[in-house]
Amino acid sequence: MMGLVSVRKSEIAALLGIEGAERRGEDVAVARVSRIEDAGPDALVFAADDKALAEAVASDAAIILAKSAPDDRVLVVKEPRTAFALVYERWFDRRGLGGVHSAALIGKDAELGQECEIGAYAQIGDGVRLGDRCVIGPRVVILPGTTLGARVRVQAGAVLGSDGFGFVRSAKGYVGFPQIGTLAIEDDVEIGANATIDRGALGETRIGRGTKIDNLVHIGHNCRIGENVIIAAQVGIAGSTEVGNGAILAGQVGLGEKVVIGPGVIVGAQGGVPTGKRLSGSGVVFWGTPARPIKEYLRDLAALARIRRED
Amino acid sequence: MMGLVSVRKSEIAALLGIEGAERRGEDVAVARVSRIEDAGPDALVFAADDKALAEAVASDAAIILAKSAPDDRVLVVKEPRTAFALVYERWFDRRGLGGVHSAALIGKDAELGQECEIGAYAQIGDGVRLGDRCVIGPRVVILPGTTLGARVRVQAGAVLGSDGFGFVRSAKGYVGFPQIGTLAIEDDVEIGANATIDRGALGETRIGRGTKIDNLVHIGHNCRIGENVIIAAQVGIAGSTEVGNGAILAGQVGLGEKVVIGPGVIVGAQGGVPTGKRLSGSGVVFWGTPARPIKEYLRDLAALARIRRED
Amino acid sequence: MMGLVSVRKSEIAALLGIEGAERRGEDVAVARVSRIEDAGPDALVFAADDKALAEAVASDAAIILAKSAPDDRVLVVKEPRTAFALVYERWFDRRGLGGVHSAALIGKDAELGQECEIGAYAQIGDGVRLGDRCVIGPRVVILPGTTLGARVRVQAGAVLGSDGFGFVRSAKGYVGFPQIGTLAIEDDVEIGANATIDRGALGETRIGRGTKIDNLVHIGHNCRIGENVIIAAQVGIAGSTEVGNGAILAGQVGLGEKVVIGPGVIVGAQGGVPTGKRLSGSGVVFWGTPARPIKEYLRDLAALARIRRED
Repeated sequence: MMGLVSVRKSEIAALLGIEGAERRGEDVAVARVSRIEDAGPDALVFAADDKALAEAVASDAAIILAKSAPDDRVLVVKEPRTAFALVYERWFDRRGLGGVHSAALIGKDAELGQECEIGAYAQIGDGVRLGDRCVIGPRVVILPGTTLGARVRVQAGAVLGSDGFGFVRSAKGYVGFPQIGTLAIEDDVEIGANATIDRGALGETRIGRGTKIDNLVHIGHNCRIGENVIIAAQVGIAGSTEVGNGAILAGQVGLGEKVVIGPGVIVGAQGGVPTGKRLSGSGVVFWGTPARPIKEYLRDLAALARIRRED
Repeated sequence: MMGLVSVRKSEIAALLGIEGAERRGEDVAVARVSRIEDAGPDALVFAADDKALAEAVASDAAIILAKSAPDDRVLVVKEPRTAFALVYERWFDRRGLGGVHSAALIGKDAELGQECEIGAYAQIGDGVRLGDRCVIGPRVVILPGTTLGARVRVQAGAVLGSDGFGFVRSAKGYVGFPQIGTLAIEDDVEIGANATIDRGALGETRIGRGTKIDNLVHIGHNCRIGENVIIAAQVGIAGSTEVGNGAILAGQVGLGEKVVIGPGVIVGAQGGVPTGKRLSGSGVVFWGTPARPIKEYLRDLAALARIRRED
Repeated sequence: MMGLVSVRKSEIAALLGIEGAERRGEDVAVARVSRIEDAGPDALVFAADDKALAEAVASDAAIILAKSAPDDRVLVVKEPRTAFALVYERWFDRRGLGGVHSAALIGKDAELGQECEIGAYAQIGDGVRLGDRCVIGPRVVILPGTTLGARVRVQAGAVLGSDGFGFVRSAKGYVGFPQIGTLAIEDDVEIGANATIDRGALGETRIGRGTKIDNLVHIGHNCRIGENVIIAAQVGIAGSTEVGNGAILAGQVGLGEKVVIGPGVIVGAQGGVPTGKRLSGSGVVFWGTPARPIKEYLRDLAALARIRRED
């Protein structure tokens, strides 16, 4: 597939804003991106450090993205990894070209934007709206009440718009609180395999633009997740919690109900934030359960180690 | 859809056991339940506190469930939220009306009760029995050996009756222990999206009446979960563990094998109970890993903080 | 189904290497394996201890696997549970006999080995290769770039070969790093319901021979999991992590990126290993977050308890 694409060094230099760079060496073309160890004369590679650069130079790669240029094949960039991703995204990313699979179910009054790809056995519920260029993987379920912006990517098995977990006690046991709200997913959000995001109970659950959600994540009803938030695998977020723009939640983090995570806050893996708590401070790392600033957490561990040794 | 329903204030008062209440003001009808901010003259709302009540009174809502009545629109109840859920459940809950989707697979000798709803691409295995009014979401898989009571609701993507995780070491590596038992799910159980519940190895896994299970929960083989247990998202329960009636397991709790959780015990989020341990005490909250009474856990944290400050 | 099988005591004795044992008592046949409490005259049972043996002797079971023989029905073995599993695997395990379901989707140029079973709504992507006797459960998704060895068993809802979670920051927000590598799953691997395993970013993700993976496990891109590793439910493994042969990861364990778990290491339930850390020592148990040798962890807990009492 990727062999069908041919991109010239001058085009890549233009994308990356490298002026005149194409004049060094020939204006060769590449047909694919690859690891250095798999590179051939049709490949673009990147070298993150000097060791990788030496390997890249010793390879047959046609173009090398690196921080310095021992060789005419190199396009010099500040961040080779980022540049590599940008080139890949611009020319080589084939996701989204599959169209609507014949075994996908599109509900009544559902609206699909331009150039959406919908995988086999995926289900787009009645009245669901998708923006342009969404990629919905195999057997994803998008339930009624859900709206997706443009370029949203959802991997296999995810469930969007499930009923939230809300019950009230009554004389006859637990009774379900209505789960009839909506789920809004903004542009450029990505959602991992088998993840689940609940609709609002009466109101809305919202996932902000550019946010990336990994596999097996759970997001409960009425949460408001900001823009460009990173949510790693198996994170669980209970109902009515807010996460600010640019926050990072590492793997298996748990947030209780009505938690507020400020913009730019980082919660380390497996950290837990109890119901109703607020964490704030852009770039501040929290860890442990209950989550506290990582310096405190590490001092706690050091104190324990000292006591242990004194025993 | 909900616009097709019309319920009068007098009917609601009767359901909630409010005598004579309908005589205040007109016997108006409502066509939907809503949040206060979305209320129109066709809506029933509830007010959990004084602030919400003021907002409700300022809205166009036709009927208000609240603890006091500044206005003829109010029906006075002790627990507005619970009353609201009861009204919703009685007249407005539309789940279960979808019938059996044409793309659902019903196995040989499977038995469906009256008025079951089965979603698209759901699979009801050979010989599986469902009670009346079960709601099985899209692409749920119910494997042979599973029995569901009445009014069981299973959300999209859940897997019921999967093989348990049991292996024995032998000279040639791990060999699977037989996973050929059954799974019994009693009346009024709800199961969240992408949750997994294993069948018994040789015996039975059982989920008691009224128990509510959130998204991405795992329950291993041969567990016995009691009645009216709350199991929040991403909880994991290893094999042969017992959970007593009315217990509450918060998000991401982990229970090892052969654990016994007594009736009414509460385990806080991310708490972990090691293999073979017993926790007891109705209403007693446990937290941490290994889980201990929350007072101890909080004192541990306080002791650490004091040591840290003394450094 | 199992009633169609008939296995004689002499055959079982031969499998287990028990010489002459069939001469005690009659050479009876069994048609099924069962728990002691469900045993009839057609059943084989095992007794793990003296109490179970007394119950087995009091039952109608035709053949009993136990450590001693109070009765002619007993075949004496060192490990009754293991022997029972071996007998089950040899004659009674019916998995894999279902063929390819008519509602399974087999991609272009996909290759299936001999005697594979593929469940309903399962999807085998373009170019995917399966070895002989693989059992792929209902609605499993196996994405392009994935290769399975022989006798791999994948339970309902698992996703193999999903895109990894890799992004780079750029001026316009997060940009996806290419996720175009491969996933190789070796012989005799088992994978639980709704688990997810990502393909490599540019390289490979590999799961070694004989490894067993439970429900809702997540394994990130470029991981190398060794042979005969046990990975319990809800474990999460971030990208580029290595797990050595024979290691055991208990439920809900989390491993960060680029972690190295040595051969035979055991990580206790909910333990967390930070990015880049190495744990080694065959048979050594680690616990806590960050995971440390269990002796240290238990001393930490004891120290805390002492301080708490002194308060």
